[in-house]
Parts: sequence; structure tokens; C-alpha cells
Amino acid sequence: MINIYEDINKLEAALRQTDEFKVLKDTVEAVRADEEATRLFTNFRDIQMKLQQKQMNGEELQEDELIFAQKAAQLAQSSPKILAMLEAEMALSKVIEEVNRILVKPIQSLYDGL
Amino acid sequence: MINIYEDINKLEAALRQTDEFKVLKDTVEAVRADEEATRLFTNFRDIQMKLQQKQMNGEELQEDELIFAQKAAQLAQSSPKILAMLEAEMALSKVIEEVNRILVKPIQSLYDGL
Ligand SMILES: [Ca+2]
Ligand SMILES: [Ca+2]
Repeated sequence: MINIYEDINKLEAALRQTDEFKVLKDTVEAVRADEEATRLFTNFRDIQMKLQQKQMNGEELQEDELIFAQKAAQLAQSSPKILAMLEAEMALSKVIEEVNRILVKPIQSLYDGL
Repeated sequence: MINIYEDINKLEAALRQTDEFKVLKDTVEAVRADEEATRLFTNFRDIQMKLQQKQMNGEELQEDELIFAQKAAQLAQSSPKILAMLEAEMALSKVIEEVNRILVKPIQSLYDGL
């Protein structure tokens, strides 16, 4: 693992220099600078996290909880600043997925023909 | 995305040089060279994949299916060659998780205090 850390850290530095990272940073800052957007976003995120926690605990989600979460999501996305941030999150997620796709490919190839 | 590919590819090359990758390669080859181990492993994997597919489609898994999958897993793990391969998979997964932990950390930090 020792040699690989240098390459991980270089990639991490390169990732922070991508347009995708910079756009996310700017859009998060725009939300943070806006009290109303911050309130809508943190409300939405806290509800999401609670539901995810319940799901991970194997608890069944009630219909009213799902409707409530959906309404909080719609409300959050009615803010252009939050919407821009969520779009930036998705764009950066695609970069991370691409990294994983490339890293995992030689591992998957080991099983070729099995 | 153009500049980052160089760093992703360097990391991918470094990953293929880790002990974890080499051990997985060797243990997969040992399974592949053994007809009985190959049969037990592919049987186990095919059952696992079918159940995962069902789960992703939102279909409920039947108890007899789960018991069947568990038995196939136990049978596969009775082979020392398969067991060594599964342990090598887990060790390499930890490396990939560590990469993701390091890459995602600056992204998570953007939300600090929100
Ligand atoms: Ca405002
Ligand atoms: Ca044998």
C-alpha cells in the first residue's frame, strides 16, 4: 500500500483542480451564503438521511414519510442555487464513477472466462 | 477531465502492482486451474448474481432461494482455493475503499458546517 498512496494523493489533488470540483465548490458556497437556500437544503438533507438510516436498519418506510421527503426535495429544488448544487454533485459523481470504472476494470478482467 | 486521466491511469497501474492485486491474480488462477473449484465458484457466483438481479428488480427473495444460495456459498468456501480467492477479493476491496475515502474527503469537506 505504501507506493500507491503517492498516486492516490496525486489523483486527489488533480480531482480538486477539475472544473467539476470547482463548480461544486462554487455552488455549495452560493447555497451557504443564502440563508433561505441553506435552510431548504439542510432540511431536505436531514430528512433524506433519516430515511436512509431507517432503510439501512431494515425498517419499512411509511407512505407519508416518502411523500414528506418528496415534498422536501421538490421544495429544495425550487431554489435555483440548490438545483445548481445538485447538478454539480451529479457531474462530480460521474468523475468518481469513471475513476472506479478504470480502477476496477483490471480486477474484473482477472475473472475473464470464469 | 483531460488532465485527470493521466493520474487515474497512473493509479490504475500502481494498483496492478500492489500485493493485494497480485495475490488476487494468483488465487483466481489457482481456482481457474482446478476444474472442481471452478465449478463450485461459478455455481455460487451465478446463484448470487441471480438473487442480486431479483433484488434490484424489487422482487422478494423466497426463503428456499436464500437457503439454496447459502448452501452454495458454504460449498464454495469448503474449497481452500476459493476461500483464498474470496479473502484476496476482500483485501483488494479495502484498497479500493481507501482510494474512494481519500478522493471523496475533499468533496465532503465542501459541506462542512452545512
Ligand atoms: Ca435568498
Ligand atoms: Ca481439485
